[in-house]
Amino acid sequence: MNFSSDTAAPAHPSVLEAMMRANSGPAPSYGADKVTARVRAQLARVFETDDFDFWITPSGTAANALALSCFCPPIHSVICHQEAHIQMDERGAVEFFTGGGRLHLMPGEGAKLDHDLFAEYLLNYDPGFVHATPPAVLSLTNLTECGTAYSADEVARFAKRANLGGLAVHLDGARFGNALAHTGASPAQMSWQAGVDVLTLGLTKTGALSCDVVILFGQAKAKGKELRARAKRAGHMPAKMRFLAAQAEAMLEGGLWLDLSRHANAMAQKLAAVFREDSIELAWDVQGNEVFALLDPHDIDKLQEDGAAFYAEWPGGSSRFVCSWATTEAEIESVRETLKRPMRK
Amino acid sequence: MNFSSDTAAPAHPSVLEAMMRANSGPAPSYGADKVTARVRAQLARVFETDDFDFWITPSGTAANALALSCFCPPIHSVICHQEAHIQMDERGAVEFFTGGGRLHLMPGEGAKLDHDLFAEYLLNYDPGFVHATPPAVLSLTNLTECGTAYSADEVARFAKRANLGGLAVHLDGARFGNALAHTGASPAQMSWQAGVDVLTLGLTKTGALSCDVVILFGQAKAKGKELRARAKRAGHMPAKMRFLAAQAEAMLEGGLWLDLSRHANAMAQKLAAVFREDSIELAWDVQGNEVFALLDPHDIDKLQEDGAAFYAEWPGGSSRFVCSWATTEAEIESVRETLKRPMRK
Amino acid sequence: MNFSSDTAAPAHPSVLEAMMRANSGPAPSYGADKVTARVRAQLARVFETDDFDFWITPSGTAANALALSCFCPPIHSVICHQEAHIQMDERGAVEFFTGGGRLHLMPGEGAKLDHDLFAEYLLNYDPGFVHATPPAVLSLTNLTECGTAYSADEVARFAKRANLGGLAVHLDGARFGNALAHTGASPAQMSWQAGVDVLTLGLTKTGALSCDVVILFGQAKAKGKELRARAKRAGHMPAKMRFLAAQAEAMLEGGLWLDLSRHANAMAQKLAAVFREDSIELAWDVQGNEVFALLDPHDIDKLQEDGAAFYAEWPGGSSRFVCSWATTEAEIESVRETLKRPMRK
Amino acid sequence: MNFSSDTAAPAHPSVLEAMMRANSGPAPSYGADKVTARVRAQLARVFETDDFDFWITPSGTAANALALSCFCPPIHSVICHQEAHIQMDERGAVEFFTGGGRLHLMPGEGAKLDHDLFAEYLLNYDPGFVHATPPAVLSLTNLTECGTAYSADEVARFAKRANLGGLAVHLDGARFGNALAHTGASPAQMSWQAGVDVLTLGLTKTGALSCDVVILFGQAKAKGKELRARAKRAGHMPAKMRFLAAQAEAMLEGGLWLDLSRHANAMAQKLAAVFREDSIELAWDVQGNEVFALLDPHDIDKLQEDGAAFYAEWPGGSSRFVCSWATTEAEIESVRETLKRPMRK
Repeated sequence: MNFSSDTAAPAHPSVLEAMMRANSGPAPSYGADKVTARVRAQLARVFETDDFDFWITPSGTAANALALSCFCPPIHSVICHQEAHIQMDERGAVEFFTGGGRLHLMPGEGAKLDHDLFAEYLLNYDPGFVHATPPAVLSLTNLTECGTAYSADEVARFAKRANLGGLAVHLDGARFGNALAHTGASPAQMSWQAGVDVLTLGLTKTGALSCDVVILFGQAKAKGKELRARAKRAGHMPAKMRFLAAQAEAMLEGGLWLDLSRHANAMAQKLAAVFREDSIELAWDVQGNEVFALLDPHDIDKLQEDGAAFYAEWPGGSSRFVCSWATTEAEIESVRETLKRPMRK
Repeated sequence: MNFSSDTAAPAHPSVLEAMMRANSGPAPSYGADKVTARVRAQLARVFETDDFDFWITPSGTAANALALSCFCPPIHSVICHQEAHIQMDERGAVEFFTGGGRLHLMPGEGAKLDHDLFAEYLLNYDPGFVHATPPAVLSLTNLTECGTAYSADEVARFAKRANLGGLAVHLDGARFGNALAHTGASPAQMSWQAGVDVLTLGLTKTGALSCDVVILFGQAKAKGKELRARAKRAGHMPAKMRFLAAQAEAMLEGGLWLDLSRHANAMAQKLAAVFREDSIELAWDVQGNEVFALLDPHDIDKLQEDGAAFYAEWPGGSSRFVCSWATTEAEIESVRETLKRPMRK
Repeated sequence: MNFSSDTAAPAHPSVLEAMMRANSGPAPSYGADKVTARVRAQLARVFETDDFDFWITPSGTAANALALSCFCPPIHSVICHQEAHIQMDERGAVEFFTGGGRLHLMPGEGAKLDHDLFAEYLLNYDPGFVHATPPAVLSLTNLTECGTAYSADEVARFAKRANLGGLAVHLDGARFGNALAHTGASPAQMSWQAGVDVLTLGLTKTGALSCDVVILFGQAKAKGKELRARAKRAGHMPAKMRFLAAQAEAMLEGGLWLDLSRHANAMAQKLAAVFREDSIELAWDVQGNEVFALLDPHDIDKLQEDGAAFYAEWPGGSSRFVCSWATTEAEIESVRETLKRPMRK
Repeated sequence: MNFSSDTAAPAHPSVLEAMMRANSGPAPSYGADKVTARVRAQLARVFETDDFDFWITPSGTAANALALSCFCPPIHSVICHQEAHIQMDERGAVEFFTGGGRLHLMPGEGAKLDHDLFAEYLLNYDPGFVHATPPAVLSLTNLTECGTAYSADEVARFAKRANLGGLAVHLDGARFGNALAHTGASPAQMSWQAGVDVLTLGLTKTGALSCDVVILFGQAKAKGKELRARAKRAGHMPAKMRFLAAQAEAMLEGGLWLDLSRHANAMAQKLAAVFREDSIELAWDVQGNEVFALLDPHDIDKLQEDGAAFYAEWPGGSSRFVCSWATTEAEIESVRETLKRPMRK
């Protein structure tokens, strides 16, 4: 019963097998290898476009911060939700990579930005007021930190408004596959077709070992050279790039990443059903692979006694359970049994 | 005949096997896993001390920049050789990670710093002159960029002088194993016993996939918490850390890293012998796994015609050949044959 | 009727006279001059201590950012009110000077931090959680952005709690004199005796030309050398420092700065009385030289027609009127007359 | 006999008088005042063009670093002479303001860059090599640190080559007037007509109190908004900007700055003559207001005994004497007398 995080799961076996296959003979360093070239072709198919550039990084923090640093000059800010991962969990990476740029935090239910507040802010701030730090980028997260999903239409609405205000649009897709699985949108619909300029395509949480891809769509491609330079000086251009590429290849091959996302989402729905069965309320609608349950202390104790791993004290008072590609029905069943059993003395 | 770089070589099979073994069941993220704990124990044995802290990164650039940023405040500088990797090949990573610190470049034969010049500089700069950027760290590289090695005594002499001047001592050991193999020094003798405060223990070029370890010795341990925080915000705290640790484990296990280093050095000696046989001069004494040969254009042409990969135009006019754990005697033999064959029309 | 800002006022004549006097013959550059030495002696008298170091800068933004950069490493944050000048009006100077540190914003009535929320935050954040950006400094502003004042006791209470949590305490005193004039506290009581480590002693708004002093008290003195180095590399070590020092000297001489502050506060009280007379509500209690009046559109129109300068649309819906050393009773009287006259067609 | 620096001189009386005049009544803050507007008109006349933007700062370090940060992204470098002020005397300001950009140092006789070396470097570096830090700006200094001057033609030749390589051209004119006075070039000829994109027009050393102007010519004007934002967040947008503007106004009025520069240069020539008379060799040809004399220890002793202030141990073994607008013929005469008098016992 490990629901602590999708990052606690191992990598999918296909990923390590692909790395094994890549480990044969010499290969050009720093991304000039053949595996990386094949990933390019895969991404083109997955996103239904040739009009993109990309770079593979070993962590979501690296991908987000590199992506944002290409679009947010140090004298500007990035608008994001006040619970966004870039605000809560990346130790000021955006401030570091942008050279002192700033996050401009906004509220919103279920970790989704409120469109009205966003539109109002863009309407009212004075871009010519030299004393303030005007926004240069809007960063959305899908799946959000509360496990909720923006539909492709919602993303498009935010992106349209952002573009009107001269902002670039970043999507933190650490759990992009989970958002797609829930909404039914295609990768293209949820990204460039919705107006996303730069996407963090997270594959680590989905089932890779260490692989989060920055994708620059359309005109944002012009930032490709800068992205590589910034990656290099951040230590994110490992010599043997082929092993990052092999992970992406394995995940994208045959839509594995989407299959794994669907599995994780399905497990989360089953887990939610187990909670509901027991009249346990959920803090947020389950729209991905995360379940936030309002457990009473007895239930928390019982689960912990039985060895379940989860965040018992998530901000807001709920307990967070994350399902992954490796979550089994047996684990869900164990939760059910634990909840049903009586308290021990 | 691939002598382009030791980073062009694949990873040693043991490394991927160890990663496979690590890929079983859930594990705590961010370095709290068991493999990382085992690496700590291995490092203690290898370096004959418990008085250290460490962090594993995926690239030498990351390791160097993180290490130096813990010791060089933004208002100070790092003394290094003018051909050091941190100056030539890391896209300003030190300037980035230190927040605008500076490299203070010094010359020296064979990419080794000149001790007299170094001592003279420390004697003459005015630490109280607020307009200049005084040094806070000395960074040595062993094996150097010219394939030469500092002996442990030489390192100790530099470190002693640096300490007198209040400087911390960093050793860029991207090819640390090669330097040990040549000098016969132990890891401890070449690092903390010689006065090194922080070591970049490079394992990627030696045979890992993507694994360079920052080790803080003795009092420098106090920087451990800062090192982790800086790693996190640089995107160098991948969730599934166990896979970085597994690489280190495989390389350190049974002294594999030293065996591989010795092999690479031996191949370089054989290659040097092939050149000498043909009366080809070497730019620098071969003290590691790199050979810098002063080839005439005909020889360069012939080698390239026969498919040899190497840097034909290294700064200074030589051609660089790098041997790795994967270099075979057959490859050396092929060089010999190519050099002996007549020019084609 | 210029109430736009205390920065719109000219400098007090004594300030320019002192600069004239300083402008005689050669003098050592960069702060080694005699005027600067005299300012040191004055500050010792004013703050009743010899245990301090200081640096004079030409702007409040410079003083705040330099001060905070000595205490907030790039991997940490500064706690401040969400309406603080460092957040609203300094274009990310703190993020810039700290090398990517962050402001952690907190709410509170009348631009004063809420002590309970502050204490609760310190209690609950996890200093060992490497993913977040823990606080290193508390920055208070006195007089606040709403023209309210912290008493010396209130400052002391915040400082005590901050110290318990290992935080340094900064006081942005852009309008320090106004806060002293209102509370009756002495400079010492409102600064080091209350636990303030580093003070921005603003003299520009009080009546100088361009002079804001960073003062390091007690143990914070150890940061003096770093402060100078940071000032130098920020371009805040002008060669002819004696002219910054002369301004400070003129302002501190005979308590001129406090006299001018008292005058500005008194004018603000008179202005507030004029508004109250006319049944105009004030957004905040007037505790310094700023008046925030809830004017109806007709009154705004009339004042603007008659040439009054003020911020008609301050955040929150009030209009901001700032009095300065140069504000005259006649100007207040003009406001009264304008408010009383009928609307024009 | 004060030859320590032109920054040790007082400000010219006209400068303080202009500040007095500016100190009357309220004025808009942050550069929106009338004095600043008049300076714009003056600069247009002086530089014979309307096609420029500008910002006034209080120090040469501020002006240089702000100027360069608008043209050198953090992943690039600034080419400059290895003895340039930005390298030797500004505490890493360029690295700070650019967010970790780098200075690329080049040698050259008399602190003037060697055109051949410069051209060769541009020819040979690989702009696509992601590991190195390619140049984005060429920074020349005129008058140089050795008191030598580039002719307008020399500047133009460098600028042309720089433009071909895609580099912007910065001129550090801390002693711009002295260079003009020596070469006879007009301000326009030595700046935008020669291909300079951004000029640091130094007036502080020339006779102002604290006033160095950044001027963006031609297309570089597009950086005006960024320059202001960077100035603001560096604390270089003092509220009462009119006092910086008043200094510039006084210096430019009637060509005062050029008169003062000519005076300083003339004094330097007289001083050089005094040395030559005494068979004292000069390290560099005197082309501005600085004289580098190769004094024997006896002469140094005698001068110091008689109270002369100068740098006795300038790098390279000479003694540096700087003349300013305030240097008198009597001071020169005193040097002559001292040199002629016998040693004391």
